[in-house]
Amino acid sequence: MSREKTPEKRQRILAAALKVFAQRGFFNAKVSEVAREAQVADGTIYLYFKNKDDLLINLFEDRMEFLIRRLHEEMEREGGSALGRIRRMILAHLRIAEEWPDLAEFITVELRQSAKFVKEYENPKFMEYLKVLRDLIEEGQRDGSVRADLDARAVARAMFGALDEQLLALTLTGRARAQEVPRAAEQLGDLFCAGIQPR
Amino acid sequence: MSREKTPEKRQRILAAALKVFAQRGFFNAKVSEVAREAQVADGTIYLYFKNKDDLLINLFEDRMEFLIRRLHEEMEREGGSALGRIRRMILAHLRIAEEWPDLAEFITVELRQSAKFVKEYENPKFMEYLKVLRDLIEEGQRDGSVRADLDARAVARAMFGALDEQLLALTLTGRARAQEVPRAAEQLGDLFCAGIQPR
Repeated sequence: MSREKTPEKRQRILAAALKVFAQRGFFNAKVSEVAREAQVADGTIYLYFKNKDDLLINLFEDRMEFLIRRLHEEMEREGGSALGRIRRMILAHLRIAEEWPDLAEFITVELRQSAKFVKEYENPKFMEYLKVLRDLIEEGQRDGSVRADLDARAVARAMFGALDEQLLALTLTGRARAQEVPRAAEQLGDLFCAGIQPR
Repeated sequence: MSREKTPEKRQRILAAALKVFAQRGFFNAKVSEVAREAQVADGTIYLYFKNKDDLLINLFEDRMEFLIRRLHEEMEREGGSALGRIRRMILAHLRIAEEWPDLAEFITVELRQSAKFVKEYENPKFMEYLKVLRDLIEEGQRDGSVRADLDARAVARAMFGALDEQLLALTLTGRARAQEVPRAAEQLGDLFCAGIQPR
């Protein structure tokens, strides 16, 4: 029985927590259920995380880091105009419902639950995710493809809200079917690109 | 001590629940705290509501009915074009942060918490609220002020998401200051009206 901490075991606990939170909801989930799912002793969890709230925040940060990394990769691969990359980002966000349904549930449902006790927590990873969008809007404002009179921060927040609501809808109405995601992304892309372009 | 049920006492319990849920969060709030706030005996709550979940759903439906009624009144007073009424609706939604901060917190934070156990619940009041927006978009599509190729249901949902996120931002960053709301509403109105108008 090894008692030393390993990154692998930490990841196993986080993966188990994601599954248990998605199935049972954060407030109903018990640390012992996460331990059982991760096949570790209850006490092992507390070697890595102070309590259930700490586990939630660490899970959130870990998964946001993953999503931010993926987003930067997609943006790099896409290249081209800011508007094209905004469309790509919309698609990438909605595809979470298809690719990682538990993660989609976690960020659309559990994240709001945490908003309550996370009020003091600055949520830097969420801000970083928003910033990808804000940077694209500001880039478009510099090259003239996005209206200069818009507040890039407010637009990024509004777009995130629309994406989050759409991801929630895809998540709650059973799990997303493959053909729904590109269509929803196209509609949102049309709506927002028309909304932010100069007349 | 009157044991009969009255609409006034029911309203008093709902008002107390809104306050307690906003302060303590739904999951942490206890029925006994709601009873204390409403100045009724603990058992009295159960004359009106089966349990805490039932209280949450009834509170939500009651407040959504109020918001839908107010929205219809505002739409009637505003009159004019569909786009003008969409702008008015955006302002009305964000003004909740200013006028009823506890209610803003309830619909942006607690509602998502309930999404978990409300999955089987169809949420007819939320659908009715969304439908006000959808009807405006469809009206605009009929009179040519809104692009016909947009899916009105998806656009309504996206707009609600943006509004909800903005209301959450106004709620979480301390309570909304009077000057922020009209500015945020104007930005969102510009963004969406440009997004849905024909080129």
